[in-house]
Amino acid sequence: MTTELRKIAEGAKEASRVLAQLPSDHKARALERMAQKLEEGLEGLLKANGCDLEKAREKGISGAFLDRLTLTERTVKEMALGIREVAALPDPVGQVVRMWRRPNGLWVGRMRIPLGVVGIIYEARPNVTADAAALCLKSGNAVLLRGGSEAFHSNMAICRILQESLKEEGIPQGAISMVPTADRSAVLEMLQMEDLIDVIIPRGGEDLIRTVVAASRIPVIKHYKGVCHIYVDASADPDMAREICINAKVQRPGVCNAVETLLVHREAADRFLPQLLSALRDRGVEIRGCPRTRERAPWVKEAEESDWGREYLDLILAVRVVESLEEAVEHIAIYGSDHTESIITRDYANAQRFLKEVQSSVVLVNASTRFSDGFQLGLGAEIGISTTKLHAFGPMGVEELTTTKFIVYGDGQIRQ
Amino acid sequence: MTTELRKIAEGAKEASRVLAQLPSDHKARALERMAQKLEEGLEGLLKANGCDLEKAREKGISGAFLDRLTLTERTVKEMALGIREVAALPDPVGQVVRMWRRPNGLWVGRMRIPLGVVGIIYEARPNVTADAAALCLKSGNAVLLRGGSEAFHSNMAICRILQESLKEEGIPQGAISMVPTADRSAVLEMLQMEDLIDVIIPRGGEDLIRTVVAASRIPVIKHYKGVCHIYVDASADPDMAREICINAKVQRPGVCNAVETLLVHREAADRFLPQLLSALRDRGVEIRGCPRTRERAPWVKEAEESDWGREYLDLILAVRVVESLEEAVEHIAIYGSDHTESIITRDYANAQRFLKEVQSSVVLVNASTRFSDGFQLGLGAEIGISTTKLHAFGPMGVEELTTTKFIVYGDGQIRQ
Repeated sequence: MTTELRKIAEGAKEASRVLAQLPSDHKARALERMAQKLEEGLEGLLKANGCDLEKAREKGISGAFLDRLTLTERTVKEMALGIREVAALPDPVGQVVRMWRRPNGLWVGRMRIPLGVVGIIYEARPNVTADAAALCLKSGNAVLLRGGSEAFHSNMAICRILQESLKEEGIPQGAISMVPTADRSAVLEMLQMEDLIDVIIPRGGEDLIRTVVAASRIPVIKHYKGVCHIYVDASADPDMAREICINAKVQRPGVCNAVETLLVHREAADRFLPQLLSALRDRGVEIRGCPRTRERAPWVKEAEESDWGREYLDLILAVRVVESLEEAVEHIAIYGSDHTESIITRDYANAQRFLKEVQSSVVLVNASTRFSDGFQLGLGAEIGISTTKLHAFGPMGVEELTTTKFIVYGDGQIRQ
Repeated sequence: MTTELRKIAEGAKEASRVLAQLPSDHKARALERMAQKLEEGLEGLLKANGCDLEKAREKGISGAFLDRLTLTERTVKEMALGIREVAALPDPVGQVVRMWRRPNGLWVGRMRIPLGVVGIIYEARPNVTADAAALCLKSGNAVLLRGGSEAFHSNMAICRILQESLKEEGIPQGAISMVPTADRSAVLEMLQMEDLIDVIIPRGGEDLIRTVVAASRIPVIKHYKGVCHIYVDASADPDMAREICINAKVQRPGVCNAVETLLVHREAADRFLPQLLSALRDRGVEIRGCPRTRERAPWVKEAEESDWGREYLDLILAVRVVESLEEAVEHIAIYGSDHTESIITRDYANAQRFLKEVQSSVVLVNASTRFSDGFQLGLGAEIGISTTKLHAFGPMGVEELTTTKFIVYGDGQIRQ
């Protein structure tokens, strides 16, 4: 494998030099063709997906995992739609983000350029293949994809269609490529190619990400987990608090921006904690509370120390009554995952303090944590969420797949 | 050591939470006090430096290395001046770099926040201690410093003065700390503390940096080397080409933004290459040329393959005649180090093409490569230069010691 994989990565690097110079309209045409050909290739895609599904069933896989693996006419149409949405985004490449003049007459600017070759390592959902490829192409990057072994045939079929589209548009096929084996050792090989791959973005569970970080010699953009907090301040509006808590916990409990811990100021707890928790219980949420929560709602299960900072990804919520905003901020600093936190308040100063003092990637006032998402925040798309601070912090769109170079216009300046 | 070093790093992390919230004027006062106390502490500093110098001489160290190690009244004054300049810079922390409205009424912005704890690993020059500490404090980061063992006593003395200044200003001393041993294994320990240190910035030769990258579990901002190119286009003004080439090679040949390879378009070579090279020779530059260079200037030494892409850091220049701008861009892509390249031209289209197609961190038109520097480009200061694209690319100022978090102002929005 080593030689073959290296050749593919070299092809990606070569293609990246072409992609960096590709005009926006050329990229847009290629994306439109990718969308079209995916729709036209429906039959072949369903057939390839059938192979994966059969194997998965043989292995006894079922439930949500099998659902995510399954392609249908609808999911293929959604893939095509997703690509068209990416095509419609502004092209970040070549944007001059700032320009200024130096006393000696030099004009200095910073221009966005692609990162180069992006390696994406992801788990079962085959739609990520089209999605990630489109975002990388839009931002002028070549992409080397490594999908989950369970979706191997589906991913290869999608990749072949994307490559054909590139070919028809005169773009090197190395721009989008797939590690052509389900063998796990290929991932380790990929992670050593620091001379060919500029960044690795793993998408999947915490285990996958920790494995990648430990093995990689290439910089990794990390998303460990989302232990999101909502702090209900003393002055919070009870109706708003209830609606936001229900939305943040119940709308889609299995995702990283769902709330996992509720912190409630003692005064708010006195005013309306039992009603708030009943409303959540009525939506099927299991509550695990601190002693002061249970004083107010004795039916609540007792929280253990391990409940603080835990990512349930399920209809479970840890609840703690706090004495002050300081205590809430401190709790988040200790147990949080730097992902997303929200304050519900009517107090101006507390809103501003929370926004300033909480050092998570997304900090909200009076809004659901579920807005922590590239689309919802207005980035137009999302390639992933970073919970560490280097390069990008929080949801990442196409701009986060670029860096800036300095450009300098002179007329003969030399240094004194 | 493990326990002691870990405690120091924990102190840094704790301090970083305080620093992140520190108002700009408080940081400015602390920086002014640091400058003052360094000037007042001159005698003690010279004494500590004397210990280092004595040991270095015993080891037989001399020349430029000993010069860089030496503190004098002048260098201490310059250190203080450098800190005052950093104090006068705009504070990046809390800057909202953009803000926009979503269709559902959410206001979304991106606010600059510090990275957290910055680890700096550097070689002999003790002035880096004050310099790096000031930049980190200004940008709200705690810093853990690890200087060269030869400057150990000087660095510890500087650090003690800086910590006293912090104490007098009521800032936790953990904000600036030094690995308290000259033992090399401490560096390896430091590089494993991914839970406490957010980024490592090594400053020094390529060997140091490669060692750090190989051993670190913490993201490293890398600066491998500076193999800077000047391309003299067909239409270049001969006088401008000469002045810029002399400046870029001769003014300070031992630094990373000095030019190492000159690429000359054949037509320019026909017009004035012999005069250009003679002018460089007159300044003491050894020329190593390709066959076509030697056709025009037979006195030139023959370049070997290993001369392309070589960082001489000395009065040596490799020269190659090329057929076209494309060939120059291709040469840079193959042999360059992504650091800094300049084109000398009177042709509008070629200037724009070079700026667009060369993917180095600094690309100049009609200016010396020596401007590739944080001060010269107007960043106000420089913590280092990154030659890889993640997080920052090119000279890094205080802004590059920050990241952004999303802030969101809502009025009860929930996700549909």
